[in-house]
Amino acid sequence: MKASLEIIEKLSISNASKIVLIVIDGIGGLPVNGATELEKAHTPNLDALARDAICGIIDPVGRGITPGSGPANLALLGYDPFRFIIERGALSAAGVGFDMQPSDIAVRMNFATIDKEGKIVDRRAGRISTAKNRELCKLLEGISLDDVELFLRTEKEHRAVVIFRGEELSEELSGSDPQATAVPPQPLAALSASAGKTVKVANSFIDRAKERLKSSYPANMVLLRGFAKYPQLPQFNDIYKLHAAAIALYPMYRGIARIVGMEILRAAEGIAGEFQTLKENFQSHDFFYLHIKDTDSAGEDGNFDQKVKIIEEIDKQIPILMELNPDVVAITGDHSTPAILKRHSWHPVPILIHSTWVRPDSVRQFSENACSMGGLGRFGAVEVMSLLLAHALKTAKYLA
Amino acid sequence: MKASLEIIEKLSISNASKIVLIVIDGIGGLPVNGATELEKAHTPNLDALARDAICGIIDPVGRGITPGSGPANLALLGYDPFRFIIERGALSAAGVGFDMQPSDIAVRMNFATIDKEGKIVDRRAGRISTAKNRELCKLLEGISLDDVELFLRTEKEHRAVVIFRGEELSEELSGSDPQATAVPPQPLAALSASAGKTVKVANSFIDRAKERLKSSYPANMVLLRGFAKYPQLPQFNDIYKLHAAAIALYPMYRGIARIVGMEILRAAEGIAGEFQTLKENFQSHDFFYLHIKDTDSAGEDGNFDQKVKIIEEIDKQIPILMELNPDVVAITGDHSTPAILKRHSWHPVPILIHSTWVRPDSVRQFSENACSMGGLGRFGAVEVMSLLLAHALKTAKYLA
Repeated sequence: MKASLEIIEKLSISNASKIVLIVIDGIGGLPVNGATELEKAHTPNLDALARDAICGIIDPVGRGITPGSGPANLALLGYDPFRFIIERGALSAAGVGFDMQPSDIAVRMNFATIDKEGKIVDRRAGRISTAKNRELCKLLEGISLDDVELFLRTEKEHRAVVIFRGEELSEELSGSDPQATAVPPQPLAALSASAGKTVKVANSFIDRAKERLKSSYPANMVLLRGFAKYPQLPQFNDIYKLHAAAIALYPMYRGIARIVGMEILRAAEGIAGEFQTLKENFQSHDFFYLHIKDTDSAGEDGNFDQKVKIIEEIDKQIPILMELNPDVVAITGDHSTPAILKRHSWHPVPILIHSTWVRPDSVRQFSENACSMGGLGRFGAVEVMSLLLAHALKTAKYLA
Repeated sequence: MKASLEIIEKLSISNASKIVLIVIDGIGGLPVNGATELEKAHTPNLDALARDAICGIIDPVGRGITPGSGPANLALLGYDPFRFIIERGALSAAGVGFDMQPSDIAVRMNFATIDKEGKIVDRRAGRISTAKNRELCKLLEGISLDDVELFLRTEKEHRAVVIFRGEELSEELSGSDPQATAVPPQPLAALSASAGKTVKVANSFIDRAKERLKSSYPANMVLLRGFAKYPQLPQFNDIYKLHAAAIALYPMYRGIARIVGMEILRAAEGIAGEFQTLKENFQSHDFFYLHIKDTDSAGEDGNFDQKVKIIEEIDKQIPILMELNPDVVAITGDHSTPAILKRHSWHPVPILIHSTWVRPDSVRQFSENACSMGGLGRFGAVEVMSLLLAHALKTAKYLA
């Protein structure tokens, strides 16, 4: 049983307390030689925090469900991931800070490599540089699509986003990215009668992009997925009576934060830079969503030791965080990315909540197994926000 | 939060991994001299498996809810037991392999004993032999009901199923079995206006059956319960992209498996026979639902020591199972049947999941209390299937 967003909105009250939510992307792992990445890492500061805190273990979306980053982070912010859905295109557009109009259609684009027969060789075009991506986006933005305006924005490496602006455009069509290699791109398909024009426009864009990229090997093709309008979500600050800020180095997480209405702080580079940004802006906001990507990247690369190293780097920042004396600190992740799996997984994620008002448990270590014995028990990520508000004394009593 | 069957259907993917789900009927118990049946049993193989596995404790239907076998097993297979209901008659008909037509009405029948005043002395007619049951069913099938065709099928011992085939028959009537002794059978009652004809037909059947059984003491009466049409459930193999097989010695569990669309393997007798059947068919399927009944029967009989003995017999089969090298093994029960209660109970049930991709916990024993401290925590049986699919890498990421 879980209070709905509507009930939490009724209960939330504003006060001067400050909450910091640290999201360590893909923090959860699987053991290699008996220890997960988090267990292997030397984390004296996180462990000390765990001793004073109350700990638990959360399922990002549901038991046995491997979440994408969108639903995993939305859930942590209190949005039921089965009810509130952000399609990929809208995530990407928000992430690069593109100001979408309500009738715009955004779609995620990969630069990719195809062979002479048109089959996909590499869905990421050898992860071309971000600079190369910018150059190619400029080239493609020159394509003219009659009465439809075209915008291209670089995300990072091979990732970009395309926005189509015009009348009678629809998000109800499937993409061209088969998410596989050795096959040709999929033909776009209308999923409703009203998507006919959008299919035509997007096909025309793909054809001309292919033509213009002919000599840009390995980036000689584009793949589109996740056609989307801008999602209208209940706004974070309205629901929780907060003045929230996001600190994230990766565009997609800034995108999620922007969609829910957080202010995006321009973060200095690196993990230390993110914490520095937190410190510099600590007075101006009362809720901070600080997202750290590198753990997930190391996990996806299958680099156990690198993930351990990044966790240790994060641990070194904890004293900087605690010197700010925040009223509530939560440290958790959006999902697991075990290095031995090289991808997101369904495994639950440890969480600690530190505040004057916790009822401390006997957990002495910030790790998956230690936290699974913690006083918070095992619960859904979507309940984290109500716990954070409660520990900041930012919620009123439910009924008399 | 739990993903719906519709979401899991979208996420499920086919691969070569094999899953074995062992359901030990009524496995959960209550302590006598400080140990439950499972704690008392010497189970070195199950305990070894628990050490390598991740463990937890499941509520079959909900906290404090004592489930019937239908909802308990449906929940384990991922069907929300409050949404998907199989009435007893349909379960029994499916269990004996009767090919129901959509307009047929099936109802579970017990041979029973009544005294001279018509009060029930034994709801099971002294558990008559299956052979005697067959003989009596043949006798009753001779009853003529005008325009309604009658079919009788023997289940086991005192249990049988009656199918009425005709026009304008309804399932909306209550049965005659009061589930108590020292009272007469209940009069059938229409639960909707359209059930009038069915009440008349079934009453006529009961009257004539009583007449024909006059000299068949102790089986001198029939009790009907669970009038039902054939349930149309989403099919297991479609939802999960599996090619599933069921191994069960008791008709009702084969019935459940058949209703959800599993292939029923003809199992050799005894617990060893069931595991032998698993071994012989291991190559031809990728999901096995292996149901063991005897633990529940011993519990219902109040025979603590017999239940312990059967658990030990099951333990001896574990090496045969593990030699097959299944990718995912789950061992659990559908509900508890404590011998000191002599019936199903609401107590939760231990579960272990064994796979390369588990995050092991510190549980060293397969028992109710040890598993309740396990890494899976406490959860609803309806989430078991998504965990099994995840550990077999048979699910895709939920959104981007």
